[in-house]
Amino acid sequence: MENQQHLSGRHVEIQHKVDLEPVGRRALVEPGMTLLDAARRAGVEIVAVCGGAGACGKCRVRRVDGELTPPTPVELRAFSALELAAGHRLACQARPLSDVKIDIPPASLSTPQRLQVEGQESEVAVDPVVQPVDVTLVPANLHDLRSDTVRLTDALAEQAIPRPFFDQPVLRDLSAKLREQDWSVRLALRRHNHRGEAVGVLHPEQALLGLAVDVGTTKMAAYLLDLASGHTLAKAGLMNPQIAYGEDVVSRIAHANRHSDGRHLLQARLIESLNDLIDQLCREAGVIHAQIVEAVVVGNTAIHHFFAGLPVRQLGESPYIAAVTEPLDICACHLGLKLASGAKVYLPPNIAGYVGADHVAMLLATDAWRAQKPTVALDIGTNTEISLAVDGQLFSCSCASGPAFEGAHIHAGMRAAPGAVEYVQIRDDGVRLQTIGGKPPVGLCGSGILDAVAELRAAGIVQRTGRFQPDHPRIISWDGGGAFLLAPAADTGNNHDLLVTRRDVNEIQLAKGAIRAGVEVLLLEAGLTAQDIDTFIVAGAFGTYLDLESAIHIGMFPSLPLERFKQVGNAAGTGARQMLISAEQRRLAAQIIERVRYVELTVHPGFTTVYMDAMYL
Amino acid sequence: MENQQHLSGRHVEIQHKVDLEPVGRRALVEPGMTLLDAARRAGVEIVAVCGGAGACGKCRVRRVDGELTPPTPVELRAFSALELAAGHRLACQARPLSDVKIDIPPASLSTPQRLQVEGQESEVAVDPVVQPVDVTLVPANLHDLRSDTVRLTDALAEQAIPRPFFDQPVLRDLSAKLREQDWSVRLALRRHNHRGEAVGVLHPEQALLGLAVDVGTTKMAAYLLDLASGHTLAKAGLMNPQIAYGEDVVSRIAHANRHSDGRHLLQARLIESLNDLIDQLCREAGVIHAQIVEAVVVGNTAIHHFFAGLPVRQLGESPYIAAVTEPLDICACHLGLKLASGAKVYLPPNIAGYVGADHVAMLLATDAWRAQKPTVALDIGTNTEISLAVDGQLFSCSCASGPAFEGAHIHAGMRAAPGAVEYVQIRDDGVRLQTIGGKPPVGLCGSGILDAVAELRAAGIVQRTGRFQPDHPRIISWDGGGAFLLAPAADTGNNHDLLVTRRDVNEIQLAKGAIRAGVEVLLLEAGLTAQDIDTFIVAGAFGTYLDLESAIHIGMFPSLPLERFKQVGNAAGTGARQMLISAEQRRLAAQIIERVRYVELTVHPGFTTVYMDAMYL
Repeated sequence: MENQQHLSGRHVEIQHKVDLEPVGRRALVEPGMTLLDAARRAGVEIVAVCGGAGACGKCRVRRVDGELTPPTPVELRAFSALELAAGHRLACQARPLSDVKIDIPPASLSTPQRLQVEGQESEVAVDPVVQPVDVTLVPANLHDLRSDTVRLTDALAEQAIPRPFFDQPVLRDLSAKLREQDWSVRLALRRHNHRGEAVGVLHPEQALLGLAVDVGTTKMAAYLLDLASGHTLAKAGLMNPQIAYGEDVVSRIAHANRHSDGRHLLQARLIESLNDLIDQLCREAGVIHAQIVEAVVVGNTAIHHFFAGLPVRQLGESPYIAAVTEPLDICACHLGLKLASGAKVYLPPNIAGYVGADHVAMLLATDAWRAQKPTVALDIGTNTEISLAVDGQLFSCSCASGPAFEGAHIHAGMRAAPGAVEYVQIRDDGVRLQTIGGKPPVGLCGSGILDAVAELRAAGIVQRTGRFQPDHPRIISWDGGGAFLLAPAADTGNNHDLLVTRRDVNEIQLAKGAIRAGVEVLLLEAGLTAQDIDTFIVAGAFGTYLDLESAIHIGMFPSLPLERFKQVGNAAGTGARQMLISAEQRRLAAQIIERVRYVELTVHPGFTTVYMDAMYL
Repeated sequence: MENQQHLSGRHVEIQHKVDLEPVGRRALVEPGMTLLDAARRAGVEIVAVCGGAGACGKCRVRRVDGELTPPTPVELRAFSALELAAGHRLACQARPLSDVKIDIPPASLSTPQRLQVEGQESEVAVDPVVQPVDVTLVPANLHDLRSDTVRLTDALAEQAIPRPFFDQPVLRDLSAKLREQDWSVRLALRRHNHRGEAVGVLHPEQALLGLAVDVGTTKMAAYLLDLASGHTLAKAGLMNPQIAYGEDVVSRIAHANRHSDGRHLLQARLIESLNDLIDQLCREAGVIHAQIVEAVVVGNTAIHHFFAGLPVRQLGESPYIAAVTEPLDICACHLGLKLASGAKVYLPPNIAGYVGADHVAMLLATDAWRAQKPTVALDIGTNTEISLAVDGQLFSCSCASGPAFEGAHIHAGMRAAPGAVEYVQIRDDGVRLQTIGGKPPVGLCGSGILDAVAELRAAGIVQRTGRFQPDHPRIISWDGGGAFLLAPAADTGNNHDLLVTRRDVNEIQLAKGAIRAGVEVLLLEAGLTAQDIDTFIVAGAFGTYLDLESAIHIGMFPSLPLERFKQVGNAAGTGARQMLISAEQRRLAAQIIERVRYVELTVHPGFTTVYMDAMYL
């Protein structure tokens, strides 16, 4: 209204449209306002530790279209010439000169905003393995006594569809559905070797849906998709309930080994939670469970084995062998999943005992697997899986990076929740913190602890070996190794000092050292050096929202120009969705496995030396 | 010892060897002794109501080899010239003149003996769908991290065996077995479309076994077979526990419809009992459940549906439609059957709602289905399924013959157990009864009531309409319709008079009328008359042990020369065993279905008239 008035009135005040992608919001701004102002006006929270003073350099965005004011001196210092040429800007500095379109990378969004955009729609051609066939039968009578399946098969033959396989659970539904629906049904037909398999019986007006799930060691994310359009109808997330049995998969395997029904209990807890997610998705989308006729579930190999009810004992003992690496199709009903009666759950192939189908899904979603120029793709977690693609070959490894980046084993560590410090700036004049939700600081989440260590090192408060500079005024005595006072009790939400301890720094050294060593060993295997890397893809929740400069600063990532890095969000979930809506994507997943050479770090001759080096800050 | 002494001594007394088939016993007899004496000496009980006086004509046997005394006048009266030419004799009359081999038809064996021989070994070429493959793998180590399935697949490839499909339950066993057995396993590989499916993982010394089951409405029979030789290792029988929910399938379907979990309860009871039988078979044969890698289960369509967990509601309502008629392979683990982890249960095809896979198995075992000359094959039960084969075509129908022949709805009816009257002779000088086990008469089993009615009719005590001759001294007043005193209380095992009531005669009229009408309608459909029937096959427990002459006498079977009849025992069980040990037999079962034209009696224009006629005695 207000805007229209302006346009129709005499004294038209100029406004520029600012389209903010990928969140899909638009703001109207007056000349002179910054992109940061525009984002705030649209309700999009961009990270700005310094409060928009141009001091922190966190509010990075990229111009996609339209005209902006020229780069300021602050921006000329913050970016390389290449980055500026590519449109990189600081949101607090750049001002629109026309209507513009801006891309906000996930790392520049505050945590709650990120969660809304993570897991983008994939862009593969929609061609799911399950397709609908509508059919109307001649009703049975005493002169036409064909069985229900024969009658249905005959009607399908009229549509030139060969007799499908009917599994038990579908046969249990079919007879009643035919009679309730006046002999008209929509069959969900799944491609199955040389003939189709009927996996669901629906009403001709019900759409066929699919479920894609990424089960992480800590979190699970589930997506409900329309199989006809490939669109995501609803998303939902939950903690992985197995955390109660161990925060990493090694302790969960140990738990399963110690208890006679441990493996089944861990499977059951997973299935229960997934059923809760399915309930939630169905409610949100206004659909019924029977419409979900196919599912894809990705996770690491241990999660995969727990989920499928496969043995895990041999995964927990050297040489850490997967029972199965080939793709599996499991009947949802045998797992106890609340989907269509005959729905199958597709589990993509695993690479090895500690490189699972979630990594395959990530390689697929990022297209990293078929990169011709040297490309590193990794997914940071308690276990970090890394692949190096070059000339159509893939080298993959796994390293135990530990749960430090998820806030565990860190003195003031916490998950990414309101009050968690996510960005840290340490200057001579003091310490600046940005917390999730702008709340008083409660603890440090993964990106916060990473930033803190990087800043402590940059300020010279921490030495290369990880030892504190004992003279610094903020270093206090703590548990034999000292600690840095990040925020005094008066400023925190819990009336305790917020500390970064010597042991915290050590945990980060172990974690980042393992990751860096993994990258270096793969480079060695391929006969390359870090500088040969053309693209460095960082996937997963933490990996996407960490500060790249901090990660490079502490040596977790090799020192490459920032434009070579790509932070891609939950690519495993995106890959799962791609395999849900496209049979071709499943074939590609099989090709990925063919190309992989798995490198076992623990027996690699160069590993120990590389690892020792990589632990220095 | 004794025999050797005779042969080596001076005064050698001649003895003849008498081989008794199919029981497989041998007797040595002195000249002058009868075949009945020989059988008694060998512990084989042959039916002889008259005690060997040549009066009852029940002790029929057939000479296979060797020389016997010429037929006596009694035998010349008992047999036709054709029968005599074919070697038929009375065991109480014929005496060996050399070593001889004698075939004792099931009907001539007393009940306990019959149960031992019923269900003959089949003679099909052994070629089961599951075959063993022994394989030894290179153990996994840190330099060879292939998953267990890939390692196994690679080893199979060396034997030119394509990668099999591994279903979940097998994958659950595989990893532990490989390690426990030092990486040597015997895989049970099942033919499955274009590649094999691994259905069991065993030790290389363990034989692969199969289970064949015939589930009748009243009884279940299970057979454990060695899949390599095709031999039966053990047999066991049990009552069908579903009897508690109705003695015929119609009442069981009604029960299932009335109770929300009725269908699953009826399935569960069946599975429990079958698991008991499996336990018993494994104990007897000294094997473990995991060795049973394949099963075949036959039963009528309702039993089939209950067993497979298929819906039965539409089977119980006109037009009585089967949910499925095609053959099914069901995972034993999903049924809860205690077999090898991946074992499949093959359910052969059904013909219609009331002609099931057990009838198909019978047609297969008897070869009736491909007879060129007109052949009738039927299996008498609560429901009687009848097929007429001629010129490569099959006409099949089903008739509700009721449970009278199983002793139900008969005043003094009982199952074939010790004390049950199995044969009856009524002469002017009195009534002779033969009971199972020679015990005092407790009641009448199926063949006893059939004999009684036939003898009552022959003696003129019952009229064509089923009414009693009221003047007869043994006719007493009973419940408005009178009753015949078969044995006074003083002679019975329970101090009650043993009676055949007017209502009993009526039940038999209804039952035999339905069966005869079914035969006649099929003949009408084929454009034949009863006299055109070349072979008349009677299968099933009761059908095999009934007295053919009695059955003809009361008009249940058409009046054909006795040599045209074949009483074949539990042919359904034999057919199940054939399909267990031979893939070819399963293909033939599919061919049978192709050839059948099902005739629905209830809408057949000629049925009512034929049925009314057929009820006369």
